[in-house]
Amino acid sequence: MTTRDDLALANRLADAARAAIRPFFRARYDMEFKSDQSPVTEADRAAEAAIRAILEKERPQDGIIGEEYGAAREDAERVWILDPIDGTRSFIAGRPIFGTLIALTQAGWPTIGIIDQPIADERWAGMMGQPTTFNGRPVTTRACRALDQAILASTAPQLFPGCTAEHFSRLAGQCRDTVWGGDCYNYGLVASGHVDIVVEAGLKLHDLAALVPVVEGAGGRMCDWAGEPLTHDSDGRVIALGDAARLDDVLEALAEGHEDH
Amino acid sequence: MTTRDDLALANRLADAARAAIRPFFRARYDMEFKSDQSPVTEADRAAEAAIRAILEKERPQDGIIGEEYGAAREDAERVWILDPIDGTRSFIAGRPIFGTLIALTQAGWPTIGIIDQPIADERWAGMMGQPTTFNGRPVTTRACRALDQAILASTAPQLFPGCTAEHFSRLAGQCRDTVWGGDCYNYGLVASGHVDIVVEAGLKLHDLAALVPVVEGAGGRMCDWAGEPLTHDSDGRVIALGDAARLDDVLEALAEGHEDH
Repeated sequence: MTTRDDLALANRLADAARAAIRPFFRARYDMEFKSDQSPVTEADRAAEAAIRAILEKERPQDGIIGEEYGAAREDAERVWILDPIDGTRSFIAGRPIFGTLIALTQAGWPTIGIIDQPIADERWAGMMGQPTTFNGRPVTTRACRALDQAILASTAPQLFPGCTAEHFSRLAGQCRDTVWGGDCYNYGLVASGHVDIVVEAGLKLHDLAALVPVVEGAGGRMCDWAGEPLTHDSDGRVIALGDAARLDDVLEALAEGHEDH
Repeated sequence: MTTRDDLALANRLADAARAAIRPFFRARYDMEFKSDQSPVTEADRAAEAAIRAILEKERPQDGIIGEEYGAAREDAERVWILDPIDGTRSFIAGRPIFGTLIALTQAGWPTIGIIDQPIADERWAGMMGQPTTFNGRPVTTRACRALDQAILASTAPQLFPGCTAEHFSRLAGQCRDTVWGGDCYNYGLVASGHVDIVVEAGLKLHDLAALVPVVEGAGGRMCDWAGEPLTHDSDGRVIALGDAARLDDVLEALAEGHEDH
């Protein structure tokens, strides 16, 4: 069972990551490119190491899956899923809209999620059965009566290879406005009721696990492009909605074979 | 002649805009859409009104061209060019990467430029013949030895209609990484040496006048897609470079008729 103690620990993990990341922001640091050409910096590694050190000491039975240092005890009932810097490209460019993602899963389902922005001192924290908070105060998503009222956000057009680009464009064409860039930060803004929809593709487990409790604890909905819940086996195509009543509209806009609509 | 007094005034104008904008960030406000479908909010109008009130009192002979309230005495020798919120879409989405742009032009050339981020308390200030400052401290652009080392930034793929999208894609394909979103904030990051190149299209005079003293006072270069200086008559296609030595590479990548290179 997930408890308030777990949430307190998750907050301490985020504090540790924040302290590890801040000295590197807009400073000099080592960096390299992984096999998928995504960048990784000293800051990513320092933050994940800081989190893992606390977990290994305080929760030696829990599993850990981290973007930078891999998996330990990943078959445990409770597994922490870590992305020390989601939005490393924005971090490198000096933009304060990246975030640290920390999730706790139980039997494969995310029960705690934290999105932490270390430079702006902004933290969204979600826990199953509790209202999501932003810097300690409850937040809720907003109603969205129709797609043409919606602000859509997505990190980059490069997320949408091949025909998925057409599907995204069809959706964007029906929304009021689209903003680009932002990574996990956009999902926090959905929870706080400033953005209505985020649609992305190519996300990995460590990119998305923490987002679910944050968005859903604020009254929103997260699912894949077929409308199904996100699981360990998801294909990385993600929808976040502030107002679940818009789900059918988004699914229809994204659906294949509807080019003539 | 532009003096330190003008720069001090420009800073006070940015202070006034900051005070006008902050109460609206992530709050409720009126908004509407202009004829070009771009959004405008109560915050844009309050900020421009606050700036103009100071200018009308202290510099009644100077001209003003503002995004929201139009032109007054625009044929004056000295003209202030104002964009109270550049990146209104990001402002509306609750993202602290928009900015207030304030430029002073003399005989049509921008001699002072300010990019102010009211939520993060970040300000780039440029003045012809002086080093650009960030929050009062001098900043410089960084060297970029080759395009494949460059971080490229641009606000949105929607900026690039028709064949300009291909040109931008060709450039992006030669750069190390591309980050999206950011509006004027990206140009500040060029001045501070965190981003190497910004390429955009569709910018208007109020979007670009303030950027030139900021980027060039930090050692960078701004020009249009033909490599020519930006003027009142520019077509809105803009290049900002931290390292002017990359100009030919960027122009070549953007040039028409080179699809086979």
